[in-house]
Amino acid sequence: MDVQQFREFGKAAVDYIADYIETIRDRPVVPTVKPGYLGELLPKEAPQTGETWQDVLQDVDRLIMPGITHWHSPRFHAYYPTANSFPAVVGEMLSAGFGCVGLSWISSPAYTELEVVMMNWLGKLLDLPEEFLNCSDGPGGGIIQGSASEVTFIGLLAAKEKKVKDLMELNPELKEADIKGKLVAYSSDQSNSSVEKAGLLGSMPMKLLPANDKGQLTAATLQEAIREDKERGLIPCYVVACLGTTPTCAFDDLAELGPICNREGIWLHVDAAYAGTAFACPEYRHLMKGVELSDSFNFNPHKWMLVNFDCSAMWVKNAKYLVEAFNVQRIYLKDNHNGLAPEYRHWQISLGRRFRALKLWFVLKIYGVEGIQKHVRDQISLAKQFEDLVNQDSRFEVCTSSMGLVTFRMKGDNALTRALLEKLDQRKNIFLMAGHFCNKFVIRFAICSRLTNSKDVEFSWEEIHSQANEIIPLPKCRIEGEMKEKRSIATIEFTDSASEKSRCEKSK
Amino acid sequence: MDVQQFREFGKAAVDYIADYIETIRDRPVVPTVKPGYLGELLPKEAPQTGETWQDVLQDVDRLIMPGITHWHSPRFHAYYPTANSFPAVVGEMLSAGFGCVGLSWISSPAYTELEVVMMNWLGKLLDLPEEFLNCSDGPGGGIIQGSASEVTFIGLLAAKEKKVKDLMELNPELKEADIKGKLVAYSSDQSNSSVEKAGLLGSMPMKLLPANDKGQLTAATLQEAIREDKERGLIPCYVVACLGTTPTCAFDDLAELGPICNREGIWLHVDAAYAGTAFACPEYRHLMKGVELSDSFNFNPHKWMLVNFDCSAMWVKNAKYLVEAFNVQRIYLKDNHNGLAPEYRHWQISLGRRFRALKLWFVLKIYGVEGIQKHVRDQISLAKQFEDLVNQDSRFEVCTSSMGLVTFRMKGDNALTRALLEKLDQRKNIFLMAGHFCNKFVIRFAICSRLTNSKDVEFSWEEIHSQANEIIPLPKCRIEGEMKEKRSIATIEFTDSASEKSRCEKSK
Repeated sequence: MDVQQFREFGKAAVDYIADYIETIRDRPVVPTVKPGYLGELLPKEAPQTGETWQDVLQDVDRLIMPGITHWHSPRFHAYYPTANSFPAVVGEMLSAGFGCVGLSWISSPAYTELEVVMMNWLGKLLDLPEEFLNCSDGPGGGIIQGSASEVTFIGLLAAKEKKVKDLMELNPELKEADIKGKLVAYSSDQSNSSVEKAGLLGSMPMKLLPANDKGQLTAATLQEAIREDKERGLIPCYVVACLGTTPTCAFDDLAELGPICNREGIWLHVDAAYAGTAFACPEYRHLMKGVELSDSFNFNPHKWMLVNFDCSAMWVKNAKYLVEAFNVQRIYLKDNHNGLAPEYRHWQISLGRRFRALKLWFVLKIYGVEGIQKHVRDQISLAKQFEDLVNQDSRFEVCTSSMGLVTFRMKGDNALTRALLEKLDQRKNIFLMAGHFCNKFVIRFAICSRLTNSKDVEFSWEEIHSQANEIIPLPKCRIEGEMKEKRSIATIEFTDSASEKSRCEKSK
Repeated sequence: MDVQQFREFGKAAVDYIADYIETIRDRPVVPTVKPGYLGELLPKEAPQTGETWQDVLQDVDRLIMPGITHWHSPRFHAYYPTANSFPAVVGEMLSAGFGCVGLSWISSPAYTELEVVMMNWLGKLLDLPEEFLNCSDGPGGGIIQGSASEVTFIGLLAAKEKKVKDLMELNPELKEADIKGKLVAYSSDQSNSSVEKAGLLGSMPMKLLPANDKGQLTAATLQEAIREDKERGLIPCYVVACLGTTPTCAFDDLAELGPICNREGIWLHVDAAYAGTAFACPEYRHLMKGVELSDSFNFNPHKWMLVNFDCSAMWVKNAKYLVEAFNVQRIYLKDNHNGLAPEYRHWQISLGRRFRALKLWFVLKIYGVEGIQKHVRDQISLAKQFEDLVNQDSRFEVCTSSMGLVTFRMKGDNALTRALLEKLDQRKNIFLMAGHFCNKFVIRFAICSRLTNSKDVEFSWEEIHSQANEIIPLPKCRIEGEMKEKRSIATIEFTDSASEKSRCEKSK
């Protein structure tokens, strides 16, 4: 493929993406293909001679598109959002075009340097404590990793490094292997699966302690677990606190957990993968009170901050524990800049790194702080809109509502909610996920796509509502109310759901 | 940014990349910026309000481009190649445009399915044993990971899982922590730094055994290390053999190492990160003789196979050990396809995954098997051209030459070669790396860019040659020969270097 063909292919691909986003609302959010569909359509071996780019783009449309789940459909409400914005797509493209591997400063200075500055911008945007930033005088700093999974694992390795070192300094007669065999980590049973996996990867048992009825790990629970383990001769080493849990977006209280960890010499890692973006808005920063007590902090701009996957921001208060855990020096990797720029390869698992800072820069420049804040506030208000719609229907109950995530269920037996989700799954018009909360089966409804608007939320609720009608017909008062609503749906956004419910219940 | 602006921005970025590649030969390969340059040029915080895409693209040109090391300059000969091809760039762009996260089959069926098929195409292209392929009946299979670093570490975890399980089945009285504390891994001192790092990450000592004078780990050395460690009560668990070492592209002999590992119940992992691509050409497959004795195999299409970073291909003979090491199930990750497609998240560190199979597909379709083979053969022949040029100069010696990598030095004291490399580093016209071979300081010269042609190799050699002249003036016979060469340089490609050397030496 020569340069001219690339110009044509590249521009055709830009148009393909633009057309895709423009028509995404018209596509069923979940594909209908069956497992193994593509293997049946594709040749069994690579072609002997090359094909044209026109053929390739046609094949994308013909073979790949039918097997895509449309994460950026405004009716996609599963998991948590994964970012996709135009500035980030172009950033990703340019990064691929430069095609460097930032394995050391000299291997492409702009890679390291832009990342250093972006992690400062981002830390200031979230109002993180100064000591986490690259621009602080101390040993703290920020880096872009690939995922929260990686970060939680890396935090664990740093915690292990620190604990082993600390204990061996105090007791030189101890053996490293004996210490490592006794280390133990904690998180709540509401933490993401990747937290448990970090324990598996790092050979450190990760105890998933029961959260309270708000989905939080409490100080009392943590303290008791630590006490028990110490009595058994184990060595508490690592705590992963969640700001925005996966099931319900609950927030652990860092101001409660932090002092315990600090007192016990336990590394406190904060996983704010999704909700961290909200701290760009001052009104949500109270939810990270106590963050200065943590040792490492992570959130994913690739979730809620409009930067395409992968871009996971990690800060540590003292980077030396990362470097000591990972540093493997070689002649071809010789540093030649006198420590004036970090060698990020010593802060991460892999040697090579893509230019992820570029797309982050593009997003921050083109959206600006105000654009990011507006995005967060809009999405939270759409979730509130959905919550209100659910509350208006007396057959439903909202279980939790936090940031852009609402969990809800049909009142009564779990089987009702299960049946509802099954119907919705089969219809494929919207995409939702199951969850559990306080031993009840719930449906998670997340505002995911940046394209989602108020009409889309109404559409999704209509879809849920219509299927609920097939499970439990509407009570009479509700039908009447609904007929009125239908006439004025555009104007009703935030009715007083409590009064609606009581009205409906009284009339039963 | 609306869709129309994206069309404009995206197309301008395509042209920017095309222009960049077209002018890359004119740029000094290594930038002249000093550490910290970008921090001084950029604002200290993100902008409050958004900027236009035109501003952003201008800033890329003004601020970023001066800090880029041009990996795809034809005069970049450092490290090993990192792929950059037009089909892969467009693949990366489309993957960003779709913006899904393949965390399970249903989260985007095409993501998993294309990867399954591509790993079959790739395995067949390299003529790997059937049992490694997804399309085999057995428990083997292939997956795209992010880097060889990740793969070596994942292989180690799988090896650990298997060894612990095997030993506990035989001796139920053993404790898991006791076994883990005794596990040990081996590779040669020529292996990549990421191999040593895998040991650090996985808390398993990685013994770097001395290679022979061809850069290979021999059976005798490995066998002796195993014997000694077993006598000490340690448990040999994992061997990383290299097909194409980083310093000299040496090939360990799998047919020698494999039987030892199989007999001792040690997991044999093959790291063919760079050189694996050569197995697309039948004439190089003898170098992987014995591969059927290995448990896992890895090479990086993102090195030599024209697929942009990151795309690291990993195959295992039995995927169950990966899944058992990593499997963390959650309700929101419920499988719903009855095992007909793999859940790759259980084969890797992170939960989420990008659509890396797309760019691989684009490259294989647009280049075809013949295009890949031609690329490999062309690059090897360029390295041969360089080797011949070095051999024609009696002040130099070629130390090793394998695939696209030549190591060479100035005869005599190491200080001469050091001084030469220093001069070349300062001039920044070509980019080379230092190395060591058999206790000598050498320079590594790798054919990296897909744009490199015969004239570029001549240019690079002229640059080296001109600086060598400042260290040791040319012997008289060489100057005369050179004047003749200058007149016919376009036609001389592969002179008989041995006869040239003897001619020159005789006349001394």
